[in-house]
Amino acid sequence: GRKVLIVYAHQEPKSLNGSLKRVAVEELSKQGCSVTVSDLYAMQFEPRATRNDIVGCLHNSEEFNYGVEAWEAYKRGGLSNDLIEEQKKVQEADLLIFQFPLYWFSMPAIMKGWMDRVLVQGFAHEFPNCYDSGLLKNKLALFSFTTGGSREMYAKGGISGDIRYLLWPMQHGIMHFCGVKVLAPHICFAPEYVSEEKRKEMLVAWAQRLKTLWKEEPINCSPEWYFK
Amino acid sequence: GRKVLIVYAHQEPKSLNGSLKRVAVEELSKQGCSVTVSDLYAMQFEPRATRNDIVGCLHNSEEFNYGVEAWEAYKRGGLSNDLIEEQKKVQEADLLIFQFPLYWFSMPAIMKGWMDRVLVQGFAHEFPNCYDSGLLKNKLALFSFTTGGSREMYAKGGISGDIRYLLWPMQHGIMHFCGVKVLAPHICFAPEYVSEEKRKEMLVAWAQRLKTLWKEEPINCSPEWYFK
Repeated sequence: GRKVLIVYAHQEPKSLNGSLKRVAVEELSKQGCSVTVSDLYAMQFEPRATRNDIVGCLHNSEEFNYGVEAWEAYKRGGLSNDLIEEQKKVQEADLLIFQFPLYWFSMPAIMKGWMDRVLVQGFAHEFPNCYDSGLLKNKLALFSFTTGGSREMYAKGGISGDIRYLLWPMQHGIMHFCGVKVLAPHICFAPEYVSEEKRKEMLVAWAQRLKTLWKEEPINCSPEWYFK
Repeated sequence: GRKVLIVYAHQEPKSLNGSLKRVAVEELSKQGCSVTVSDLYAMQFEPRATRNDIVGCLHNSEEFNYGVEAWEAYKRGGLSNDLIEEQKKVQEADLLIFQFPLYWFSMPAIMKGWMDRVLVQGFAHEFPNCYDSGLLKNKLALFSFTTGGSREMYAKGGISGDIRYLLWPMQHGIMHFCGVKVLAPHICFAPEYVSEEKRKEMLVAWAQRLKTLWKEEPINCSPEWYFK
């Protein structure tokens, strides 16, 4: 059975994001997948990249460089336990699903902190092993999120610009950089402004997509895909 | 004298980011500006958007919706003190400078949390007051950051794509949405891989730019500027 890690960032289990997460757990489990959830708010996950992430002595205690210190700590097994736990989950997963409400054209800070702290050099990338040869190659990622703005606002000529523009840093800049292949995003536009019935349709559509997810081809992570 | 708020996110005062922040404080103070710094790591600024941001009762305790609760709390003066403090600083400022190392094609989580929590509806925007009529209009913002990757990697045909692509969510999606006009970003490419002399030149160049900053025109926040 395939392994899936859902990194989930919503404060409220009753939210649409909470329901989307639940639907994914149910549908993927039904398929025989083994599903793990990192419920970031429930875990009170720490988003700040600080000296606390390094157990024991620093490589250079004169001038703190987070990237270098995390890299060195990774190599000697000296990262904090919460990071080691998350890295184990990532290592075992065939697919990473990120489930969140869009905050300011990006992921909520608590999820950005997961990226900042978990995907350290040595574990997820190590020059020249980045992009197509990133250390997490052979894994898939999927960004599943809700928006405040409508589909029209995020259309090509819309005031917020094509939604693909804002996917670039997350999909290319983070996942592709680590070698992870990216499946098309799953976007629920403006669920707060539609009927309860429409929201139920959103859940059904997600469950439907998941049924044939493993047959999907990754998107092409080139600027042409995002900005054409 | 003009008022400047520097929102600063680096763990190490001796870093280039620390020096760039210091140079800005010195140069702008010399010009007679009043400069305030929010040193996010030193403040242990909270990046997570949670129920703790709301003092007293919730608007809807059945189902927690952060955006709605923060909006309602703002209106009745019920946001947590750290947020009220930051909002005061923003309100008074003519110019916001964001100083940080680029983490994953974006700002570090601690700064994303500042955006998520400080720029609440009612304070920074309130439909239809967004984009050109956002509530923080008549203010300027400038993103000043360092990168890990080189200028060549962030060139138009480079592997990381034109650096402008990753500015879109920050400049258009956040600042322009709140009505803030955006000055051209100030980018120090790959300071860790250049000589000490080159790093000193970077500081001098920043001080030089600041001397005539108030004469600069904002960039055009349209897709053409970013993706042409």
